[in-house]
Amino acid sequence: MRVELLNIGDELLLGAVANAHAPWIAQKLGEIGATLSRQTCVADEGEGIRFALGEAMARADLVITTGGLGPTSDDVTRATVVEMLGLETRIDPQVLDNIRERSRRRGAPMLDSMKSQAVVPATATVFFNAHGTAPGLGVPGRSPCRWLLMLPGPPRELHPMFTEQALPWIRARFADLLPVVECRVLHVVGYGESRVEELVESRLRTVENLRIAYCARPGEVDLRLLIRAKDARVARQSADCAEAIAREALGEAIFGVGEETLEHAVVALLRARRATLATAESCTGGYLAHRITLVSGSSECFKQGWITYSNDAKATQLGVPGHLLVEHGAVSEPVARAMAEGARDRAGTTWALSTTGIAGPGGGTPEKPVGAVFLALAGPRGTVCARHRFPLDRESFKFIVAQTALNMLRLEAGKAG
Amino acid sequence: MRVELLNIGDELLLGAVANAHAPWIAQKLGEIGATLSRQTCVADEGEGIRFALGEAMARADLVITTGGLGPTSDDVTRATVVEMLGLETRIDPQVLDNIRERSRRRGAPMLDSMKSQAVVPATATVFFNAHGTAPGLGVPGRSPCRWLLMLPGPPRELHPMFTEQALPWIRARFADLLPVVECRVLHVVGYGESRVEELVESRLRTVENLRIAYCARPGEVDLRLLIRAKDARVARQSADCAEAIAREALGEAIFGVGEETLEHAVVALLRARRATLATAESCTGGYLAHRITLVSGSSECFKQGWITYSNDAKATQLGVPGHLLVEHGAVSEPVARAMAEGARDRAGTTWALSTTGIAGPGGGTPEKPVGAVFLALAGPRGTVCARHRFPLDRESFKFIVAQTALNMLRLEAGKAG
Repeated sequence: MRVELLNIGDELLLGAVANAHAPWIAQKLGEIGATLSRQTCVADEGEGIRFALGEAMARADLVITTGGLGPTSDDVTRATVVEMLGLETRIDPQVLDNIRERSRRRGAPMLDSMKSQAVVPATATVFFNAHGTAPGLGVPGRSPCRWLLMLPGPPRELHPMFTEQALPWIRARFADLLPVVECRVLHVVGYGESRVEELVESRLRTVENLRIAYCARPGEVDLRLLIRAKDARVARQSADCAEAIAREALGEAIFGVGEETLEHAVVALLRARRATLATAESCTGGYLAHRITLVSGSSECFKQGWITYSNDAKATQLGVPGHLLVEHGAVSEPVARAMAEGARDRAGTTWALSTTGIAGPGGGTPEKPVGAVFLALAGPRGTVCARHRFPLDRESFKFIVAQTALNMLRLEAGKAG
Repeated sequence: MRVELLNIGDELLLGAVANAHAPWIAQKLGEIGATLSRQTCVADEGEGIRFALGEAMARADLVITTGGLGPTSDDVTRATVVEMLGLETRIDPQVLDNIRERSRRRGAPMLDSMKSQAVVPATATVFFNAHGTAPGLGVPGRSPCRWLLMLPGPPRELHPMFTEQALPWIRARFADLLPVVECRVLHVVGYGESRVEELVESRLRTVENLRIAYCARPGEVDLRLLIRAKDARVARQSADCAEAIAREALGEAIFGVGEETLEHAVVALLRARRATLATAESCTGGYLAHRITLVSGSSECFKQGWITYSNDAKATQLGVPGHLLVEHGAVSEPVARAMAEGARDRAGTTWALSTTGIAGPGGGTPEKPVGAVFLALAGPRGTVCARHRFPLDRESFKFIVAQTALNMLRLEAGKAG
């Protein structure tokens, strides 16, 4: 089944607002096994809408539009569709009552321009708008397009209308075309996109009707496995099979599925083990603690953190011996270890993570160039330390260092014992 | 001038991520006087890309694509364009060196799939990717389209490439079609969008050829002043005049221009005054320090920070008296003040900022509901404290609290004396 989305509105093309409808509608369609094949934005202007609608109806089984249904002069979607498809119109009494009632409640007169919203195609399915005046409209499309669905632009009008009325309507009208889909998104850390592909692609070729996508994000790769089938049981079995292959190939590099972030996985793991955590940050400057404390419920495991940017703070707050700072410098393995151990002692936690590095752009030396970083993790089995180099811009550097530190903790804390 | 944007990526049509490129690119184009006439999303799949590109090139003077330039099997944009336009290719040595160097620094082998990114159309303008491996490519389009511009998908690769290389390239190649524009973006904090409009709109009506846009972001409003003229001198004079009017109307609510963030403004102010800062965070969990330390050079003014999530940490690390925690609770004015003063004493800094509040979703009471927060600033003139309520999701809450704290510091530290 081919579905196209046409978002209508000047504000979208001027960059004044992001198009939040596209991902929202795409996800909702995903729940009934439909996928958008194309999404287009055009301005509030008849000719552009007509062209885009003509093209979309020539390709898709269902075309969904958002926006341009309101009462003002720049709302031209409904009139454009009526004219383009040569539709008869009628006045819908329920819509008119709704407009009258909402005007009365706001103490405003019902303007003629508002009444225009009650003029609907005679053949239309009318979707009542519980949060505004413009109804949604479903009309038969121009072949090969079966249906054209027009939805209002404001999200608080569109969302309930789509979930409660439009989605069941789509499911009923396209029951013959909707496949059963099963989608698994696995989050991978520690490997680049190419390496993930190398590890899984050939093994996954044995799974039928599987679409594989790799989405590289900073510090992680999303591996998306999408199965389409005619039958829910077959789809689930194939997805289970694909997921099992990927899990075997990638092992503990997979930290989560679906909406789970690395910090979620770490907090869940610590809570499950009744373990606690402190942080001692230099180069990440609070970002590591920020990511952990973004997780609701993190206060059960995260106790406290230090941001020891200056050498003085490393010594006075964490007890890093002055001679280590002098002999090895703040960016060194002995200092990273002393920071983690000092934080663990002072906070009395199971684990303590430390970061010390050169975020740049200034401060690099030949021996310790920009991007050099030491991470240490103090825990019940002693302290481990890793050296990395991430020569990136400041924001990306902090992200990758925090990602690497969180993953170090995840792997260590996940070990049995 | 007609510009179309073609965003390529399965993840956009599956609703996995919002299309952040479209508004970002639209705004950047706005700065050189160009407006998007259409934006389209298609999947990572040759036939769909070919159709969409064909349509776009038949309508637009410039077609910009994002995504599909990476090394994996689902990245097909470059190959599709090469085949569609019958382009000769060559291997770009600088791109190959960049791929080799990035692999080397990551300690990873250079895979053959990665080398494919160095295969570029012989006629292409190659935009170097300072933050990734896939270069941007500008190639002559199919008439009437003059140019086709291919950009990588990851925002941290696309943003600097677009601003530094692609935008000047577009301006040079379309000088005959672009109007002369002068754009000023003023960042305002402390007022909502409607209040900003009320303060400036009527006064700005005296400026000719001015287009005003208000963009509400979390915790700030961007006031965008766009002048179109036939002559650069006239455009600059009119923009100066509009900016002066806005500055008079908004006063110290304007914290910066262009790309400047609130944390940049704060760090610049502290450095100019040779002042230093410490932070004591509870509910912001490191996010306040993170924003400050994102600014290059912040180590000159930011000395250290504490993340005292538990009551115990507030007492032992910052010296908050136990009776204040018992009598008033951790989320209270006395505790906020004691945290800021304790941090200032211990770090020996000019200023110390503290945050304590209820981020939610759990933990609220009728007296101290979710979103309640106290901010304190200890400084040479004593300690000030403010109470706010931001009933938002966890991430937005942390953002607004940090924004409010930074602005409190900016206004206090900016006072003469």
